Amino acid sequence: MKQQSIAIDMDNVLADVEGHAIAWYKKEYGVSYSKEQLNGQPEGSGFENQEAFWRYVHSPGFFRTVPVMDGALDVLQKLNTIFDIYVVSAAMEFPQSLEEKYEWLDEHCPFITWKQRIFCGDKSVIHTDYMLDDHTKNLDHHQGTSLLFTACHNTLIKHHKRLNNWKEVGVYFNI
Amino acid sequence: MKQQSIAIDMDNVLADVEGHAIAWYKKEYGVSYSKEQLNGQPEGSGFENQEAFWRYVHSPGFFRTVPVMDGALDVLQKLNTIFDIYVVSAAMEFPQSLEEKYEWLDEHCPFITWKQRIFCGDKSVIHTDYMLDDHTKNLDHHQGTSLLFTACHNTLIKHHKRLNNWKEVGVYFNI
Repeated sequence: MKQQSIAIDMDNVLADVEGHAIAWYKKEYGVSYSKEQLNGQPEGSGFENQEAFWRYVHSPGFFRTVPVMDGALDVLQKLNTIFDIYVVSAAMEFPQSLEEKYEWLDEHCPFITWKQRIFCGDKSVIHTDYMLDDHTKNLDHHQGTSLLFTACHNTLIKHHKRLNNWKEVGVYFNI
Repeated sequence: MKQQSIAIDMDNVLADVEGHAIAWYKKEYGVSYSKEQLNGQPEGSGFENQEAFWRYVHSPGFFRTVPVMDGALDVLQKLNTIFDIYVVSAAMEFPQSLEEKYEWLDEHCPFITWKQRIFCGDKSVIHTDYMLDDHTKNLDHHQGTSLLFTACHNTLIKHHKRLNNWKEVGVYFNI
C-alpha cells in the first residue's frame, strides 16, 4: 500500500525564522523581543524597524544560518520512516535562498533526499495527504488535511487544526 | 471560474537540452550527431562518450546557456493568458542548476512569475489539470491529462498522448 504523504514547510516550521530574526534584531539594535510580544501580528510588523527586518530576511546568508526549530529533526526523521515526506518551501519569493535552503537541508536533514525537496511559489498545486505549514494562504487551498504550525504571526487564526510545536506533531502522528 | 492549470517541464520541453548537448559534443569532440541518430535511446547513451555527456550536464553553466526550444515562448505566453501555468522542473537532481534555471526563466520567460515556478525532485505530488513533460516517470503518476513532449529518448513510448513540438502544443490547446 502506498504510504500517506506529508508536505512540510521550512520557514517557521523546520527552521526557526522568527527566533533567528529576534536574535539578529537584538544584536543589531540592542532591543530584545520575546515571541509573545510578536504574537498576532503579521510577519515583521512587531519590530519597531520593520524595514530593517525585511532587509535582513532578503540578505545573503539569512536562510543558510536559520537555527533548526526545537525538536524538529527527531520527529521529522521518525516521520520519514513512516510517511512519504516532502519538504515544501515557498523559496521562489527569495531567489537567493534557493541554494541556501538546499545547503541547509543538506546540513540539517541529509535524510531528506533531493527527490523529497520542493521549492515553489504557490503551494496550491501541491497535493499531499497532509500539509504542515504556518501560513493559512498555503493551507486554505490544500485538498488534504491541513495542519497549522504555530508561529507568532498566526496565533489569532482559528480555522485550522493547530499544532503548537514538534512534540505535538509527534503526538498527532502517533510517533 | 478557476482557470485550468498546466504543469510545463523545462528540460527538453521549454529548454532544448538535447540540442545544447549535441552542439557542445560537436565543438568538444568534432563529432556531429543529429537528433534522429539519438532517437529511441536513453538520455546520453547515444553519444559515443556517454561519461563526457553527463559531466557536461553536471557542469556549471550548462542549464544557464540552454537554448529555448523552437516556438516555445510564443505559445507559452499565449497559454499564460488562458491557463494557470506552472513551470515545473526536476531541478533538485542538479543543485547547481537551481540558480541557473531561475535566471534562465528570468531571461527568457519573465512573464512566468515566481509564484508560477516549481523546482522539485519527484513530480508525483504536483496536481494540475494537464502536465506537459518529456519523461514518462513524471507523466505516469499524474492524475490529470498527461501530454508527452517528444524528445529523442522517448520516441518509442506509446502510452501517452504525444505532442511533437510547440506548434502541436498550440493546436492542442486551441490557441
